[in-house]
Amino acid sequence: MVDYALIGKGIRRVDTTAKATGEALFSADLKLPRMLVGKILRSPYAHARIVHIDTSKAERLPGVKAVITGKDVPDERWGVFRYTQDQRFLPVDKVRYVGEEVAAVAAVDEDTAIEALKLIDVEYEELPAVFDIESALKPDAPLIHDAYPGNINISVDINVGDVEKGFLESFYIREDAFEAPEDSYFQGEPYAVVAHFDSSGNLEIWMPNAGPHLKAKPLSNVLKIPLNKVRVRKITIGGAFGGRSEISPADVICAFLAKKSARPVKIVYSREENSIATRQAHSMKATIKTGVDREGRVLARDITCYMDGGAYSSTGPIAVSVPFLCMEQAYRMDNVRYRGYRIFTNKPIRGMFRVHGRAFACGIDLQLDLIGKELGFDPLEMRLKNARRPGDYTPTKSKVVSCGMVEAIERAAEKARWREKWDRLPPYHGIGIGCNSVQTGFPMGIRGGSQAFIKFNEDGGVTVITGIVDNGQGNDNMIVQIAAEELGLKVEDIQLINADTEVTPSDPGSYSMCETFVGGNAVRLAAQDAKRKLLKIASEAMKVEPERLAMRDRKIYVIDRPQEAISISRVVRMALSRRENISGEGSYWPKVDSNREWVTNPFGQLSETFSFGAVIAEVKIDPETGKVDVLEVTAAQDVGYAINPKVIEGQFEGGVAMGGQGGMLSEKVLWYGGRVLNPDQLDYMVPIAPGMPKINDIIVETNDPGGPYGAKEAGMSVAMSAAQAYASAICNALGVYIHEFPLTPDKILKAIKEKEEGKNR
Amino acid sequence: MVDYALIGKGIRRVDTTAKATGEALFSADLKLPRMLVGKILRSPYAHARIVHIDTSKAERLPGVKAVITGKDVPDERWGVFRYTQDQRFLPVDKVRYVGEEVAAVAAVDEDTAIEALKLIDVEYEELPAVFDIESALKPDAPLIHDAYPGNINISVDINVGDVEKGFLESFYIREDAFEAPEDSYFQGEPYAVVAHFDSSGNLEIWMPNAGPHLKAKPLSNVLKIPLNKVRVRKITIGGAFGGRSEISPADVICAFLAKKSARPVKIVYSREENSIATRQAHSMKATIKTGVDREGRVLARDITCYMDGGAYSSTGPIAVSVPFLCMEQAYRMDNVRYRGYRIFTNKPIRGMFRVHGRAFACGIDLQLDLIGKELGFDPLEMRLKNARRPGDYTPTKSKVVSCGMVEAIERAAEKARWREKWDRLPPYHGIGIGCNSVQTGFPMGIRGGSQAFIKFNEDGGVTVITGIVDNGQGNDNMIVQIAAEELGLKVEDIQLINADTEVTPSDPGSYSMCETFVGGNAVRLAAQDAKRKLLKIASEAMKVEPERLAMRDRKIYVIDRPQEAISISRVVRMALSRRENISGEGSYWPKVDSNREWVTNPFGQLSETFSFGAVIAEVKIDPETGKVDVLEVTAAQDVGYAINPKVIEGQFEGGVAMGGQGGMLSEKVLWYGGRVLNPDQLDYMVPIAPGMPKINDIIVETNDPGGPYGAKEAGMSVAMSAAQAYASAICNALGVYIHEFPLTPDKILKAIKEKEEGKNR
Repeated sequence: MVDYALIGKGIRRVDTTAKATGEALFSADLKLPRMLVGKILRSPYAHARIVHIDTSKAERLPGVKAVITGKDVPDERWGVFRYTQDQRFLPVDKVRYVGEEVAAVAAVDEDTAIEALKLIDVEYEELPAVFDIESALKPDAPLIHDAYPGNINISVDINVGDVEKGFLESFYIREDAFEAPEDSYFQGEPYAVVAHFDSSGNLEIWMPNAGPHLKAKPLSNVLKIPLNKVRVRKITIGGAFGGRSEISPADVICAFLAKKSARPVKIVYSREENSIATRQAHSMKATIKTGVDREGRVLARDITCYMDGGAYSSTGPIAVSVPFLCMEQAYRMDNVRYRGYRIFTNKPIRGMFRVHGRAFACGIDLQLDLIGKELGFDPLEMRLKNARRPGDYTPTKSKVVSCGMVEAIERAAEKARWREKWDRLPPYHGIGIGCNSVQTGFPMGIRGGSQAFIKFNEDGGVTVITGIVDNGQGNDNMIVQIAAEELGLKVEDIQLINADTEVTPSDPGSYSMCETFVGGNAVRLAAQDAKRKLLKIASEAMKVEPERLAMRDRKIYVIDRPQEAISISRVVRMALSRRENISGEGSYWPKVDSNREWVTNPFGQLSETFSFGAVIAEVKIDPETGKVDVLEVTAAQDVGYAINPKVIEGQFEGGVAMGGQGGMLSEKVLWYGGRVLNPDQLDYMVPIAPGMPKINDIIVETNDPGGPYGAKEAGMSVAMSAAQAYASAICNALGVYIHEFPLTPDKILKAIKEKEEGKNR
Repeated sequence: MVDYALIGKGIRRVDTTAKATGEALFSADLKLPRMLVGKILRSPYAHARIVHIDTSKAERLPGVKAVITGKDVPDERWGVFRYTQDQRFLPVDKVRYVGEEVAAVAAVDEDTAIEALKLIDVEYEELPAVFDIESALKPDAPLIHDAYPGNINISVDINVGDVEKGFLESFYIREDAFEAPEDSYFQGEPYAVVAHFDSSGNLEIWMPNAGPHLKAKPLSNVLKIPLNKVRVRKITIGGAFGGRSEISPADVICAFLAKKSARPVKIVYSREENSIATRQAHSMKATIKTGVDREGRVLARDITCYMDGGAYSSTGPIAVSVPFLCMEQAYRMDNVRYRGYRIFTNKPIRGMFRVHGRAFACGIDLQLDLIGKELGFDPLEMRLKNARRPGDYTPTKSKVVSCGMVEAIERAAEKARWREKWDRLPPYHGIGIGCNSVQTGFPMGIRGGSQAFIKFNEDGGVTVITGIVDNGQGNDNMIVQIAAEELGLKVEDIQLINADTEVTPSDPGSYSMCETFVGGNAVRLAAQDAKRKLLKIASEAMKVEPERLAMRDRKIYVIDRPQEAISISRVVRMALSRRENISGEGSYWPKVDSNREWVTNPFGQLSETFSFGAVIAEVKIDPETGKVDVLEVTAAQDVGYAINPKVIEGQFEGGVAMGGQGGMLSEKVLWYGGRVLNPDQLDYMVPIAPGMPKINDIIVETNDPGGPYGAKEAGMSVAMSAAQAYASAICNALGVYIHEFPLTPDKILKAIKEKEEGKNR
């Protein structure tokens, strides 16, 4: 075990004080001189042709400084892949969902802006609309995009091994269907953008984001200005969860309003807008057919998933294959076919989510429980029999280098006393388990690498410059801990400049779980570059070879004679006296196969490494009310190496809240046609702190050879596994397997009633 | 001649739009939320013991948020050298000049702050004071600092060759005394500071400065916080001229007020405060004894200068030797003794100035004119006989690598038609010449080097990160031109991040005329580092050796087949596809001898190179009023290479305004004891644009081998030579040599009267 000074320690996060005192500013808090209020006019129709827009009355209203429609915005379309670019930031021809952006105003105050919106006359010609997958797939269904026949946005067909042969060889086969409606990310911070152009045409823009450089590129494209004029600034961010990954129409609209009015403009979304006009999670229907041998080992799987993508592609295409990729990483399966379809409907746009594909992931686990029941193996045994192991290749041919799946399952089982409890719990008590795995980055081509610069001040202090963004998960802290560790400094010796596209080099952003792995490695390499220079100078001064020197406690010392030491600040000054500046540069590019079609044809190394999680939940159900009381949750994850265990525990617990407590007990979007009925916190029930169960955190470390200090993704595997564990536990408590999530009291009561009536599913 | 795309072109300055529209913010323009107004209580006495300060009444005044005295500020003393650190930022024991800082308040508005100042009771015990060099040097003079017996702050004694032998061998010897009072820098922008601490103890501070990193270090020392918590920010600066070089008590006071009040604080100096409480130029008395051979060539010089330094050392010690160093660079002199003394008086503090040592420099030139008159050589011949030439060593042993002094003199003479006009001008018409030379940087030890980082965006745009500051002279533009030239890009492709101590690496600042030479070289090296990486990739793609490739117009092309080209943005994307980031780092340290005692013992290479200027002025005097009408000025300077001729012409013309028009015709500080009688623009007459003469700019290029593209300092040699040329021309017009500057109408009328009365001096 390496003896680190800071890595592996649960030191206090660097952003604590600013957040605790309220000093930290979020985008909505910003105030610029002469700033205007921006408001967006949204479509009242789910599907309609825009016949005419008359903005003249709005323009004449005193206090209105700019009105824009689709005509003011170049025809640059958004979509995460070149072949799915289908969304204009302000449509000109037709609207495709209730809430779509139609026009926008900037005015001196909010009242004037709202009044101006009312004065914009839009003549629509309403079109027939579709609101669910089945209707959208009907031959006579209204076509939402001309370019997508049959309303099929994307279809994925992955076929590995020989599925038919696998089924033929199977001892037992079963097929189940699972489904789940949409859920909402419900970030604590509502979406807000502030944009400002200076007289040289430079854009300064602030917004919650999961990668400032990813926001800058489409802004550069649509504004027709180079990247060095797009300055996405660092700002405190109140959660992303996949939902702040991509450019938003609001970003573009705010920039165009600022350009037209020649004044700063701020748009703050209402809670309702945040729920309908930012990305939210997909609904899904999954059919899973699994064949196992006599021992319960999976021999073949045939899976079909349909996802309702809403009206545009956005990052949605990625959502089609990722749930499958996660499960093929988590569980061994040699012969597998996966067919995934993303279907357009006239509903708000769905995107990437931290707890992705509930129906599919929970389905896989519930089906394993059902198979085990048939063969006489408990869910724990079923997981262990099928768990991914190190050295394996996934079906789509990613090598799994480090893998603590078995250890995560075993340690969770021991902590949760699974073997004591299984089959011995009283009625309506249950225990369940879920396992999942996530990538640390996707193949992102030229945007996949991260770079960091480091400079030393003459007093031995350091500045780190990196594009890594912190959405709340503690990335700022991760950077500082890595730099300080590598350079033998204290956390307070590190000054961090990050998440600003003007000054920082490129970085892939936090949305693909790669900031620690990719960005962290870049920071470490930059620090090592500076360290090499320091050790060379110290080596000459101390007359000891550089290999025999180490850095710690602000000193460079001889490893086997620690009392022989020299302060780092002195070595920096020695360097300066020799006319050498101490600085460092580091770049890290994940070792993945460049595969532009990885979503539809995901073969090759898709991510350099993977994290593995196992969650066990124990629940008690009130058969009178259907209410679930979660007694204890044990969350275990192979994080590679815990750079900061406290931060990781926070991620685990947030994951249980989001994936389990919210995602499986309460969260679902309610619809009336294309309208969201529960856009607010009263009706869309997000879990709150007092309702959280006891959580045991188990950090599994496998020291990934590619990760910084062995670290990889931390927390998302838990978030997903938690949903699965909750489903498994509740069905175990009920003795009935519900196939539609979340498992809300109404469904539980119905299941109890059906069970009592003998209708065992 | 190298064919550059941008270097050598008079392209529009990058800061033009922001300055023309008023968008550019100066420190006094800044507004931060909850910002307080800071005000400073100043001593009404020139010399007094502080017996007691009672701030209790001020503290009780509603709206007052902080009151500080010397007790609140650690005993860190300021002075540019360790051995001259004698100034507390707020004194505790005694005050040494009228206007010295005694206490300070921060309040919600200006009225309250002023009211609070009145409520601070300071009990003083007045001490005898001295206001001139002679009184300060008397044996019974009051002692201003215990550590400086005889009130002698610093004494310099340089003795080169054999002066006595030189005089013995001389054909003609004369000795003259010259003197000049203090002058004021009168920057357009008054001094202002805004300071703010965040909850993590990081200081953000804005102020006019000639080197943000030079400001950060003393702030770090006195605030006892590391450099990475001191963030001197970039802000538009309205002129420095040597007067924004060093830390100001206002910087420290503002920071302590911000710390104590836990709110942002802004201090804006009144015009009066700007004149008494920021550094201003020294007065000087110079005695010059010169011996020449029959041909007018100087064989020996013995010089003694006394400078009134005011109450503290500050950067003043440098001022003692610099005028001598400039002249020993400009004119050959093998046997020379220089004795320089800086004397403390109870007057405001004097510092470095762009037109340094008027009395001495003009004295040298006037004396050459007088010697020439005696020997039958005109001033032009005298300058040519004694001009510095390339390959020479200065008396203090600096090698002069590039030197266009003779060319500057000859071209100025030709343009001014000297040989046609000399001795042929009508009465009260005159023509005169002055020559001078400046360093490009002083030995600054560990702070002497500049470093720059460069990053490429994926679209081929570039960001340059450097500590170089722009005080108005065009340094921002210089950086951008160099980076764009080196990388074959357009000016608008370069994004500049500079003059911010948080993000930029160290840089010596603009105060020692070294930004182009030192900082410009660092930027060029950083660009070349990035270029090397780009050319390597392009070379492989184009199958041509890198040496055969060049970059221009956003393309990389084959030098001898320019149609074979590939766009730079494409090469950047190729690099990214290969998982390589394109970035660059460059450091430049001037090749000077490390000499910590260079002020008192300036031997060795003091600056890597020197600039050389020659100015010719033609004047007409109204004998009735003594008013000088400057008919034409020809300003020539060896700038090495003109990176931007338009910017350099601006510097030349500003130099003529400051050195000649202001420095020799009107500018002087008037005193009543230790009180400045003319602190404002009405009474201290700064030249204004409509009063400026016709100026011919002659840029001499000698392609310095060490300078970026051959460039070195531009403008300061002209500023100094202008003063000398004006003096020479006026004395020529009068036929009388006045030894006291500036040459104001009263002195001119007196000289005319004395001449008419036959009292030829």
